[in-house]
Amino acid sequence: MKTMKKIATIGGGTGSYVVLSGLKKHPVVISAIIGMFDDGGSTGVLRRELKVMPPGDLRQCLVALSDSDHLLKDLFDYRFSEGFLSGHSLGNIIISALEKNTGSITGAVDIISKLMNITHNVIPVTLQGTTLCAFMKDGEEVIGQDNINKSFLISHLSKLELVPDVEINAHAQKAIIEADKIVINPGDLYTSIIPHFLVKGMKEALLQSRAKLIYVANLMTINGHTDNLTVGDHRKILTGYIHPRKIDYVVYNTAVPDEGLQLVCKEHNQHPVKLGDHDVGSGIGFVGEDLIDRKIYEKRRGDKLYRSLIRHNADKLADIIHEL
Amino acid sequence: MKTMKKIATIGGGTGSYVVLSGLKKHPVVISAIIGMFDDGGSTGVLRRELKVMPPGDLRQCLVALSDSDHLLKDLFDYRFSEGFLSGHSLGNIIISALEKNTGSITGAVDIISKLMNITHNVIPVTLQGTTLCAFMKDGEEVIGQDNINKSFLISHLSKLELVPDVEINAHAQKAIIEADKIVINPGDLYTSIIPHFLVKGMKEALLQSRAKLIYVANLMTINGHTDNLTVGDHRKILTGYIHPRKIDYVVYNTAVPDEGLQLVCKEHNQHPVKLGDHDVGSGIGFVGEDLIDRKIYEKRRGDKLYRSLIRHNADKLADIIHEL
Repeated sequence: MKTMKKIATIGGGTGSYVVLSGLKKHPVVISAIIGMFDDGGSTGVLRRELKVMPPGDLRQCLVALSDSDHLLKDLFDYRFSEGFLSGHSLGNIIISALEKNTGSITGAVDIISKLMNITHNVIPVTLQGTTLCAFMKDGEEVIGQDNINKSFLISHLSKLELVPDVEINAHAQKAIIEADKIVINPGDLYTSIIPHFLVKGMKEALLQSRAKLIYVANLMTINGHTDNLTVGDHRKILTGYIHPRKIDYVVYNTAVPDEGLQLVCKEHNQHPVKLGDHDVGSGIGFVGEDLIDRKIYEKRRGDKLYRSLIRHNADKLADIIHEL
Repeated sequence: MKTMKKIATIGGGTGSYVVLSGLKKHPVVISAIIGMFDDGGSTGVLRRELKVMPPGDLRQCLVALSDSDHLLKDLFDYRFSEGFLSGHSLGNIIISALEKNTGSITGAVDIISKLMNITHNVIPVTLQGTTLCAFMKDGEEVIGQDNINKSFLISHLSKLELVPDVEINAHAQKAIIEADKIVINPGDLYTSIIPHFLVKGMKEALLQSRAKLIYVANLMTINGHTDNLTVGDHRKILTGYIHPRKIDYVVYNTAVPDEGLQLVCKEHNQHPVKLGDHDVGSGIGFVGEDLIDRKIYEKRRGDKLYRSLIRHNADKLADIIHEL
C-alpha cells in the first residue's frame, strides 16, 4: 500500500477554509496549522471573557474538513443576530466551552474532530496565548490583530512581534518536519500569515523539513497593508520572515475579476494582485492560473466583520497543489 | 414481533431526567412530554434575549435519553462559570441556536435527537410561548415560574393560569392518546407539573387515552408550596387539575433519608412526603417502595439555581413503572 502524501497548510481562517475544502477531496493526509492571533469580533470577546485561545480560525478549518452534509456543520456556522449573543458564532462558543471543560484547546479540537468524523489534523500553531503587536517607525505601538488590521502599515511598519514570545506546538512542528508539501495559504499577509513565522521554532521546523514549500498568493491587495504589491513583492516580504528557508512555488491568479466584483472590491480599496514584470526568476516556480471563484460570498447574517467577497476556487487550487 | 409498549411521561427537567434515565433501559418507546414554562436562570435569559422557547427542560431530557457515553452529552451539560456566559448551559445555547436556525423548537429537537442517536421522542407540551401566572386570594399576581417558585402559595393561591392561553402540541396529544402508560413525573407540583394540565387540549387528551395513569409523588415537600402535604394530598391536588380523568397508580417513597441528607434538606425546609393515614382507598393503587437514590448530587459548577439534593433511584422507579 502506497502511503498517502502528507500536506501541511499554514494560515488563518478564511484562506485556509478554501484551501482545505479543496484539498480534502484528494487522497492526502492534511495537517492544518492554524494561527492563534485573532482577537477581534466574536473570537476576541470569547478570548477576553473566558480566557481561552482564539476559536474562530479553528472553527472555520474544522468546518472545512468535515463532511459537507454533517448536521453539526450548520450548527457550527450559525451566528446569533440578536440579544447578548449577537454576532457570536455558535461554533466559537462550543469550541471555547470544550476548551474550558477539557482544559486545553487540543482537547476541544479532538472532541470536535471525533464528533464531525474529521480524519485530518487541525493543529493550533501554538498552545500559548499571545498578542500580535506592530511597532511603527514613528514609535507608535499597535496592539492586537484587530487593531493592526485597521492600521496603515505601508512605509510605517517597523516590526511585528508576538507578545509574549510563544513556542511552536509540538504537533505543528512534527507535521511541518514530516510533510511532503507545505502550503502557505492566502490570507492577510501581515496579520494572519506572517505571525506564524514569529512563533519560536517555526522557522527552524521549516528549515528541517524536506517538503516543497508552496505559497498561494492573495487574489487582492489589502487596504493599507499590501496596496500595489505584485505577486513577487508578496513572496519577497514573506521570504524575509522565513529566511533562510526558500519558497519553492508561488501559485497566483491570472484572471481579471468581473467588473461588478471589482467595483465592490474597489470600495474597500482592494485591487487584483498581479504578476510583476520582474517577479519570475531565481529558481522559483511561478504557477499562474485563473483561480477566481465566481460566486460573491454574501455577508453572513449577524456577522459584524467585513469578509472578502472574492475567493479562490477551492477545487482548482487543490488540483494545482496536488500536481506540484 | 410484539409491539413495544408506549410510555408517555409528563414533567419538567430534573424529575423527568430521573424517570427517563431509568425507563430508557427497558424495551419501551418513550414520548417525553416536556413543560415549556421555565423562565428562570440561563433559560430565562435566552427566552428573553433571543425570543425562543425555554430550552432547559428539553436539554435535560435529551441528555437523559442519549447514550451515556456520547461525546455530545458532556458538551450539552457544560455550564460556563465566567464572563458574559456565566451560568449559561452550553446545551441551552445550542438548542436556542438551532431553534433560531431551523425556525422551530421541533426542528431543534429533531436535529439534536439525530446527533445524539436518540430513538425516543422528546416533545414540547406546547409550541406556543406562554407565561405561568399565579393569582393570589389577596389580589396579588405573581408572574412567571421563577417568581412563583419564590412565592408562598399555601392558603394564598387562588388560581394558576397560562398567559396567553396555549394549545397542546399535536405530537404531545397523539403520544398521550396512543400511550399504554402515562407517567406524571416528580417535580415542582405547582410550577412544573400542574401547568401541563392548563394547556388547552391536555385534559381532553388524557380523557381520550386508555393508558394507565401513574403519578410518581415527590420525595420531599417544597418550601411554601407543599409543606406538610401527604402523598394523598399531592394526588388530590393534582386530580383537581386533571378532572374528570382519574389517577390509576400512585408511586411513592417509604424510606427515610439518611440523617445527613435530611439536615441539608431541612435547611431548605424540605421534609419527606409520607403516606397519610387516610390516603389509601377509592380504587387507586398505591405502590410504596424505598425509592431514594443515596447519592448527594453536588451543586453543579457555575449553576446559579438550587437543585434538589435528594432524588429518586432511576432504576428502581423504572422497574416499578414497567411492572405496573
